[in-house]
Amino acid sequence: MSLQGVFAPTLTPVKPDLSPDTDRLIAHCRRLLDRGCHGLALFGTTSEANSFSVGERMAVLEELVAAGIPAAKFMPGTGCAALSDSIALTKQAVDLGCAGVLMLPPFYYKGMTDQGLFNAFAAIIDGVADDRLQIYLYHIPPVAQVPTSHNLIEMLITAYPKTVVGMKDSSGDWNNMQTTLERFPGFRLFTGTEKYLLATMRGGGVGTICATANVIADRVRHLYENWQSPQADQLQADLMQTRDTIFAHKLQPIAALKAITAATTGDDEWLRVRPPLESVTDQQAAALMADLAPIFAQPV
Amino acid sequence: MSLQGVFAPTLTPVKPDLSPDTDRLIAHCRRLLDRGCHGLALFGTTSEANSFSVGERMAVLEELVAAGIPAAKFMPGTGCAALSDSIALTKQAVDLGCAGVLMLPPFYYKGMTDQGLFNAFAAIIDGVADDRLQIYLYHIPPVAQVPTSHNLIEMLITAYPKTVVGMKDSSGDWNNMQTTLERFPGFRLFTGTEKYLLATMRGGGVGTICATANVIADRVRHLYENWQSPQADQLQADLMQTRDTIFAHKLQPIAALKAITAATTGDDEWLRVRPPLESVTDQQAAALMADLAPIFAQPV
Repeated sequence: MSLQGVFAPTLTPVKPDLSPDTDRLIAHCRRLLDRGCHGLALFGTTSEANSFSVGERMAVLEELVAAGIPAAKFMPGTGCAALSDSIALTKQAVDLGCAGVLMLPPFYYKGMTDQGLFNAFAAIIDGVADDRLQIYLYHIPPVAQVPTSHNLIEMLITAYPKTVVGMKDSSGDWNNMQTTLERFPGFRLFTGTEKYLLATMRGGGVGTICATANVIADRVRHLYENWQSPQADQLQADLMQTRDTIFAHKLQPIAALKAITAATTGDDEWLRVRPPLESVTDQQAAALMADLAPIFAQPV
Repeated sequence: MSLQGVFAPTLTPVKPDLSPDTDRLIAHCRRLLDRGCHGLALFGTTSEANSFSVGERMAVLEELVAAGIPAAKFMPGTGCAALSDSIALTKQAVDLGCAGVLMLPPFYYKGMTDQGLFNAFAAIIDGVADDRLQIYLYHIPPVAQVPTSHNLIEMLITAYPKTVVGMKDSSGDWNNMQTTLERFPGFRLFTGTEKYLLATMRGGGVGTICATANVIADRVRHLYENWQSPQADQLQADLMQTRDTIFAHKLQPIAALKAITAATTGDDEWLRVRPPLESVTDQQAAALMADLAPIFAQPV
């Protein structure tokens, strides 16, 4: 069950009452797997994970699996501010048969020591107490404001070598990813941005968990499959052009990806986000799609 | 039910399995009310609120009220990253008869707009849908990293003048508190540090919700009661000396306050914290108590 490849931190559609829209999410998951995702990092930052309660998250995962999407395709986010929440979510993921979990450090208190963070992970691992547990650490300092340092990785893989197996690095800092790859051979690094997919694969990493995979899974997969080909640099450059086109609009990324999904599926229900996020305006969505149209018109 | 005076953001003792130790908490609440607290800001930052699940928090509040501590004495923290959690906690607090709630903004996503944050508060207020609801905003940018700006206060008190009634300002920035007092007369400001208690009262504020009230409620209350006396500046200076003695040790504040509580109650169970926090060492606790002994020996 060693995970690798292209994972989407799955967008979470919501109903008018802001509850999770499970039917649309099931359709989205199937579409992503059809279009090239190896798996789904349900309830990452792009999924608005922390905007949903633990109960809502558990109900959604249960419904997705009940709908027939293989649990082994999921790497759900299960790291919360409260370790009791992290234990509950992680236990459920393991019991359902998820191949791994993506784990934020406890993120409310800032400036904690690595020992304090280690203690939190240890309490979760010991609380779950299941040999099947495979943890991918989730390093996203721009949002969580609590880093997963190299020192902390070393403490964790030393204490739990069979459980703490990899990381998603959403720092946006290639130097940090490169150090991880060099310092911890065999530790499974997913880059948090397709920007560094080629560099990550060349450095011994295993793939990417990137927000844009929600809308361009086929293009990300194409680079992943061909990273050792002579065209790899050109494919990375092409992917960057698509990425830059999306982000040049400087919209809130989650709202923008939902707007693209609304446009490509013809379903405006997708525009909705949970506060504190705000939907993009019709005008912003139209401008974004106008720029993306020529790219989407090209075959992968 | 307009709250004012000295509130403790109540420390939360935990058992060896890290679950909330409700019996010790009940005793602590009674002690704080006996020693001068007007009320208890259960589940603030000092309470390790976000280190506990919503279920744990609801069970604790229910047990405290069942134990006979008047619900009207509580201003529980109810602001979470997930608005469904904030609604659940807030509804319970109102239903039990709490005089108010202390509400963090949704704190996972950073750099949200005031409109996005307003939408989150509005969704909570509309979701609770109870005229008895009295919200005190909780501004603590050093930890939450998401501020409650003056613009946001204005938006909220304009839209919900009978519901959004005050704020705890834990920015540590007197200029921010002064601006709030001047710009929003009648809006009930609690300073988040006893350092500015006298200045807050002179500026038209209503009191303090400060971490140190867990261990020196009597001294904070003494200044509060005498803020208009000729001795007020001396009392503020005395309070600062006590505060500085505690914080000069540069220990993690919550762990330090628990260590002081352990020492003054003779109950080492109080030393325990939930990860990612770490308990102070025996040596650190002894050094801290040695410095505090002469102060604690003086009558208030």
